[in-house]
Amino acid sequence: MSTKTRILETSLAMFNQLGSGNITSLDIAAELEISPGNLYYHFKGKEEIIARLSKECELAIGKLLGRLDMELISEREYWVFLKSLLTVCLHYRFLFMDFQSFEAGGVGQKGSQRLLNQLRRFTDGSLTALMDKGLLEIKGNAKSELSENLFLLGLSWLCFEANQAQVQDEQELVEKGAHRLISLVEPHLSRRLQLADND
Amino acid sequence: MSTKTRILETSLAMFNQLGSGNITSLDIAAELEISPGNLYYHFKGKEEIIARLSKECELAIGKLLGRLDMELISEREYWVFLKSLLTVCLHYRFLFMDFQSFEAGGVGQKGSQRLLNQLRRFTDGSLTALMDKGLLEIKGNAKSELSENLFLLGLSWLCFEANQAQVQDEQELVEKGAHRLISLVEPHLSRRLQLADND
Repeated sequence: MSTKTRILETSLAMFNQLGSGNITSLDIAAELEISPGNLYYHFKGKEEIIARLSKECELAIGKLLGRLDMELISEREYWVFLKSLLTVCLHYRFLFMDFQSFEAGGVGQKGSQRLLNQLRRFTDGSLTALMDKGLLEIKGNAKSELSENLFLLGLSWLCFEANQAQVQDEQELVEKGAHRLISLVEPHLSRRLQLADND
Repeated sequence: MSTKTRILETSLAMFNQLGSGNITSLDIAAELEISPGNLYYHFKGKEEIIARLSKECELAIGKLLGRLDMELISEREYWVFLKSLLTVCLHYRFLFMDFQSFEAGGVGQKGSQRLLNQLRRFTDGSLTALMDKGLLEIKGNAKSELSENLFLLGLSWLCFEANQAQVQDEQELVEKGAHRLISLVEPHLSRRLQLADND
C-alpha cells in the first residue's frame, strides 16, 4: 500500500474515532510512524486530507446515485441500494459529525454542503419513485416533511446511534439504520414493501 | 444580577454558540470582563460550570415531567407541554450537542445520560398515554421503534436543524420541532389530534 493511501486510511480511522477536530497532522504522522515531513510531502496538512476524504465520499455517493434508475428499481434493489448508501455514510461518518459541529465554517462544512444536498435529493427522489409506482400516497407538504424527517433521522442514526453503539458491527448498524428509515415510510405505503428474502 | 448568575448565563450563551469544547474558563472571564481569579472563586473551572448547567437542565425537564399527568392530559395541553419541553432543550442545547461529540467520556456525557433517559421516558410515556386513550394503534415492536425514532429525530432537530438555522427565532424553531415530532406519530393515529387553536 502506498504511503499516500496509508495516510488516508489511517486519517479516516482516527477522524471517525475521535473527530477531525481532535486530531492533528502530527498525530497522524505519529500513528503511521512516519516523519511529519514525509506526511507533508503527500498532503499539505490535515485540511487537505479532509478535503480529499470528503471528495472520495461525495464521489462514492454520486456513483451510487448515478446507478440508480428510480423508475425501474425493484423494491429489493431499493433495499440493497439503501444499505449501500448507509454503508458509505458510515465509512466516512466523521464528515457528517462535522456538519453537526458548532462552527458554521468548520472543515466539514466547506463545500461539503454538496454531500448533504446529495442525500436530500436521494430521500426526495425515492419518495417520488414510490409515488410514481402507486406504492405511496402522500400529499405535497407531508411529502416534503417526510423527506426532511428521513434526512434528519438518517443523520441522527449516523451521528448518535452508530457513534454510541457498544457493538461496532457495521453490517448490523446498517441494517438497523435502514429499518429505521423504512419504518418512517411504512405507514404511508399502500402495501408492505417486498424487501430482501431474509427480512 | 449576581456574578455567579452572570457567569452561568454568559457561559451558556457561549457554549450554545461555539460548543463547550471550544470555550475555556479564560474566555468566559474575558467575555464578562472579570479576572480569572474572580471566576475561580465561584466555579472551579469550566467543568463545574457545565455540571451546574447540566443539573439545571435536568431539574427543568424533571419539573415538566413531574407536572405531566399523562392519563389526564388533553391533546391541547400535550401540545403545549411538548413545546415547553423543546424550549428547555433548545435553551441548553450545547449539552445535547455534547452527546453527539466523539469522546465517549466527554463532559456532556458524564452523568448526563440521565438527561437522555428522561427524554426517552417522555417519548415512551406519551405514546402509552395516546394508546390508553384509544388514539393510537400500534404494536409492541413498532411502538418502541417509533419511540426511539422520536427521540432521535428530536436530537437531530436540536443539533442539526436548530443549530444550522439562519433565523434564530426560538419560538419558530420550537413550533417546527414539535410539528416534526407529531408528523411521525400522525399516521398511526385513529383520528387527527386536536391541538392548539391557531394550528
